[in-house]
Amino acid sequence: MKPESITALKNLATELRIDSIQSTTEAGSGHPTTCMSAAEIIATLFFGEMRFDPKNPQNPDNDRFVLSKGHAAPILYAAWAHAGLFPRKDLLTLRRLDSDLEGHPTPRLSFVDVATGSLGQGICAAVGTALNARRIGSDYRTYVLLGDGESAEGSVWEAADVALYHRLDNLCGIVDVNALGQSRHTQFEHHMDAIAARWNAFGWHTLIVDGHDVEALLHAFAAARAAKNNPTMILARTIKGKGVSAVEGKDGWHGKAFKKGEEADKAIAELKTHLQPGGVLPDIAAPASKSHGEAPDYSPDYSKMVPPTYKPGEQVATREAWGTALAKLGAVDSRVVALDADVGNSTFSDRFEKVFPDRFYQNFIAEQVMVGAAMGLAARGAIAFATTFACFLARASDFIRMAGLSNARHQLNVKLTGSHAGISIGEDGPSQMALEDLAMTRAVPDCAVIYPCDAVSTERLVVEMSKYHGLAYMRTSRPKTDIIYSLDEQFPIGGSKVLRQSANDVATVVGAGVTVFQALKAYDLLKAQNINIRVIDAYSVQPVDAAGLVAAGKATGGRIITVEDHYHVGGLGDAVAEGVASAGLTVERMAVRELPRSGQPNELLDRFGISAKHIVDAVRKSA
Amino acid sequence: MKPESITALKNLATELRIDSIQSTTEAGSGHPTTCMSAAEIIATLFFGEMRFDPKNPQNPDNDRFVLSKGHAAPILYAAWAHAGLFPRKDLLTLRRLDSDLEGHPTPRLSFVDVATGSLGQGICAAVGTALNARRIGSDYRTYVLLGDGESAEGSVWEAADVALYHRLDNLCGIVDVNALGQSRHTQFEHHMDAIAARWNAFGWHTLIVDGHDVEALLHAFAAARAAKNNPTMILARTIKGKGVSAVEGKDGWHGKAFKKGEEADKAIAELKTHLQPGGVLPDIAAPASKSHGEAPDYSPDYSKMVPPTYKPGEQVATREAWGTALAKLGAVDSRVVALDADVGNSTFSDRFEKVFPDRFYQNFIAEQVMVGAAMGLAARGAIAFATTFACFLARASDFIRMAGLSNARHQLNVKLTGSHAGISIGEDGPSQMALEDLAMTRAVPDCAVIYPCDAVSTERLVVEMSKYHGLAYMRTSRPKTDIIYSLDEQFPIGGSKVLRQSANDVATVVGAGVTVFQALKAYDLLKAQNINIRVIDAYSVQPVDAAGLVAAGKATGGRIITVEDHYHVGGLGDAVAEGVASAGLTVERMAVRELPRSGQPNELLDRFGISAKHIVDAVRKSA
Repeated sequence: MKPESITALKNLATELRIDSIQSTTEAGSGHPTTCMSAAEIIATLFFGEMRFDPKNPQNPDNDRFVLSKGHAAPILYAAWAHAGLFPRKDLLTLRRLDSDLEGHPTPRLSFVDVATGSLGQGICAAVGTALNARRIGSDYRTYVLLGDGESAEGSVWEAADVALYHRLDNLCGIVDVNALGQSRHTQFEHHMDAIAARWNAFGWHTLIVDGHDVEALLHAFAAARAAKNNPTMILARTIKGKGVSAVEGKDGWHGKAFKKGEEADKAIAELKTHLQPGGVLPDIAAPASKSHGEAPDYSPDYSKMVPPTYKPGEQVATREAWGTALAKLGAVDSRVVALDADVGNSTFSDRFEKVFPDRFYQNFIAEQVMVGAAMGLAARGAIAFATTFACFLARASDFIRMAGLSNARHQLNVKLTGSHAGISIGEDGPSQMALEDLAMTRAVPDCAVIYPCDAVSTERLVVEMSKYHGLAYMRTSRPKTDIIYSLDEQFPIGGSKVLRQSANDVATVVGAGVTVFQALKAYDLLKAQNINIRVIDAYSVQPVDAAGLVAAGKATGGRIITVEDHYHVGGLGDAVAEGVASAGLTVERMAVRELPRSGQPNELLDRFGISAKHIVDAVRKSA
Repeated sequence: MKPESITALKNLATELRIDSIQSTTEAGSGHPTTCMSAAEIIATLFFGEMRFDPKNPQNPDNDRFVLSKGHAAPILYAAWAHAGLFPRKDLLTLRRLDSDLEGHPTPRLSFVDVATGSLGQGICAAVGTALNARRIGSDYRTYVLLGDGESAEGSVWEAADVALYHRLDNLCGIVDVNALGQSRHTQFEHHMDAIAARWNAFGWHTLIVDGHDVEALLHAFAAARAAKNNPTMILARTIKGKGVSAVEGKDGWHGKAFKKGEEADKAIAELKTHLQPGGVLPDIAAPASKSHGEAPDYSPDYSKMVPPTYKPGEQVATREAWGTALAKLGAVDSRVVALDADVGNSTFSDRFEKVFPDRFYQNFIAEQVMVGAAMGLAARGAIAFATTFACFLARASDFIRMAGLSNARHQLNVKLTGSHAGISIGEDGPSQMALEDLAMTRAVPDCAVIYPCDAVSTERLVVEMSKYHGLAYMRTSRPKTDIIYSLDEQFPIGGSKVLRQSANDVATVVGAGVTVFQALKAYDLLKAQNINIRVIDAYSVQPVDAAGLVAAGKATGGRIITVEDHYHVGGLGDAVAEGVASAGLTVERMAVRELPRSGQPNELLDRFGISAKHIVDAVRKSA
């Protein structure tokens, strides 16, 4: 690189520091010092290394940048302002309610793929964007900037393993090793060799550089580009607060803005003394390849999808029907990919793997990176089905929360499926029983939550969740269940099905999944006693079919009983209760209310109060 | 060790294999092959290495064993049967509803400290039991058995870092490297050097052994005992299904019991051919030290605790009052310890650290091991307060779920606190806002969920949650809030406080935390319009004060409005709605219903519909 370019990059780093101080000082809060340690890294990445169209951050062939250390948001915003995407003066709107320049980056901004700010997640998403480059046949590269404190998060090492497994040499991480966490020094401070030993042991091409040396950084990026087969981690030794002597490397300056007036003015004045004349900023390199992914207006022909083909009397687990459907869906929609955490032979995602091995990503037993990579893939246009046992999705709960934020544009097509839900799994026992997954996923705004009871509805709903814009979750079950729907039945999200009804029903019993069959059994038992009930399959738990439920409740004496293989918190009962509350209806909730244990599935349904017998008792009590 | 002892240990390994097959075959499900790879490890640990009282698994000075690979439960049970704790024939009750020998270990069994079966958690709990040895001055050691597949979980590496930081040379891990996961080979198969490189890089004393060589294992354990300063990881190369040629090292045998009859009989017959004459099992070594921890009947003198000392008009954040209270509590209860994830200067756990540095455990930015270590500490008698920002507790959601299981005896005193809850944190933005933590913690059976609004109630409730038997969660807030309670007010868990009432209230408004102040402001605004409302502080979200709320609802025309700084799912609104449903009352829920964003706290309360203004509107609409 020309000397005047080097000078310009050095000056840019100083300007980025000044911008970071000015915007946080104006906001009265934020993290200037963590921006200042990263200034040369950001300057060289954006103006000396990355290839992208600064006017179109969503160009599919742009190199991607993920700010895993999301609290350095101000310098990310400043970089894009300098790249010309928006006026530099907008930086002063940082953290204001009327600005998209939030405290931590969210995809409300066109240049942000996934929301960051929960540490250790960005690198997982970066694994996903790197995988996506292969999927769409682009040679774009992915860069991800982490903090050293952040590297304590286990998810970072999950990402390290998966990136190695998939040989993601198009992925380049940079750790901003400024040696200071929030409350104290990091565990490894500036022991660069100790940190390097870890990344080396995890199989990454590892480089140590002075993170304030523009030329060293440029060389490291070039070496990363040249490295084949392995991902690269650049460990950049830096000083937190670099450039302002009053704060350089000092404790107590994490997350603290310079005070308006003398404190900020003095810092900026000191920084300005570092500016050198004669700099000429290099042009940002254009994206290198034209990918052969889907066209922007790509639309799959769902009419070509093989419909369900079950026979009357057949028993099929919904988890198995899900696998069958996913493989069928993959055949008509090239955007569909699947991610597994070493349970594909139980969740049946291996059906997809068999047909589309190139669109199937193994993560081994690492749920956080599985969901994080799904976020990255989805952010770049894939429809990413990530699946494990429902209980183990809780391992990625914070990732699912952040996927919700990353869905701010309603186009993050992460489709989660949790199999083996509830006590109906039986003998494996409580550690394997998800009884809080409906609460976890319903708590994500705009996340569709689906819980089919039979194979036909499962197959139809896999397509519905794929079509749905944004996040969706499907809960599947371990036991085989009867086919109760005709093969051409349709299941819109937000709907429900009335399975039994009469003019003199004394109560509405609402089930979903395995409890639908308990409700149907209760119907038969009550019928024999000349008591009629209405039975509803609430396969769409969110949005719930409030209108249908209110109508049913009103037609059955105002009595609604929900029954679910889930704790009583945040699941079907709460969803129905909230849905019918404005009509003045209350709900009697049957749910699991204590710690379950190992046993046979039907024994457990009975023991924990959600079997047909208990429904019969509840109806008779209220009748 | 004598030759006849070696022979006996080899035979015991074979017997443990036979027991594992017989019990799973009888149950018709389970994981015999993963037990078989670990047979020599378990035999040598229990009969050649560990020092414990086999008749009293809860002896405080017993060496601890944590089965992190919980699906190998049958061999753990077999080991304790051979140690004489219960008859060997009981093993055949495995996985039955009437047996505590569940599919995966839970503390319903006296010899299980924490529930395992969600991989990667046991080693985190083992960090806690190892820290506890120091706390109580015991030289017991902690052993933890992991799977190689399990080592993909990021939490394993969080534990590795924290164990190194605390120099836990009383901790010895063993990885059963059988090279097979559930659905395929593990990522690193039998590449022992690649695995060893990782543990070495993480600073552990690392040994590679043949996991079927009894003498090699004994030597490795001795070397681990001798190693000072660093924890030890023994990497044991094993064969899954070892001992039965039909299944040894074969895919497709994960989680599969041998079929009753010929298949099982043949396997057992083959194993029996390995038994050698002349073995004499060594005596189990007795615990080495008598610890100087608390007496079993230890009871703190709470009357000596310094009461709250706030002055009228003072404004104090509940997070700060929490830190003050914890330090005071630590002075009267020696069991109290605190765990941090590098945010102690924001959560105010640093107030405890300053006074009790020896009972304060830093985990850096690693929430999973923080909660896991709290589980281990609590399982051994500590009252473990683990704290971070409420949103980041979601990172440990699956650990919190398993802490619930580990609380099966209602004595796991893990006390979680989540600070900076809700949109009221303001400018940092949505990634830092917990809006699902009440749902997450309410979904844990028997977990008390506390949400104080002022400093006085916070201080009182810290003591209440400490006294509460088992799990408890407290949600604290970032903004400073008024002191509204007198210094001698008491706050029992399960209670609520009526803050405003009259004979002609038109509605009951139920708040908690920051929304209490919005409700009080709404009261004033409505009062000026001659509309009276009842205002309730529902500081105990679980159990909720159902009786008090029903009474208030009935006295105010049946109208109850809840308002919470939380999503509408699984929080205060749902808790109150369920609590009052049986009285025929419905609830109007005011809550956050969309993705929030950065802004000033009061702006955000207004923008997202939970400010005084919105309460006024809701009351007027329904009035």
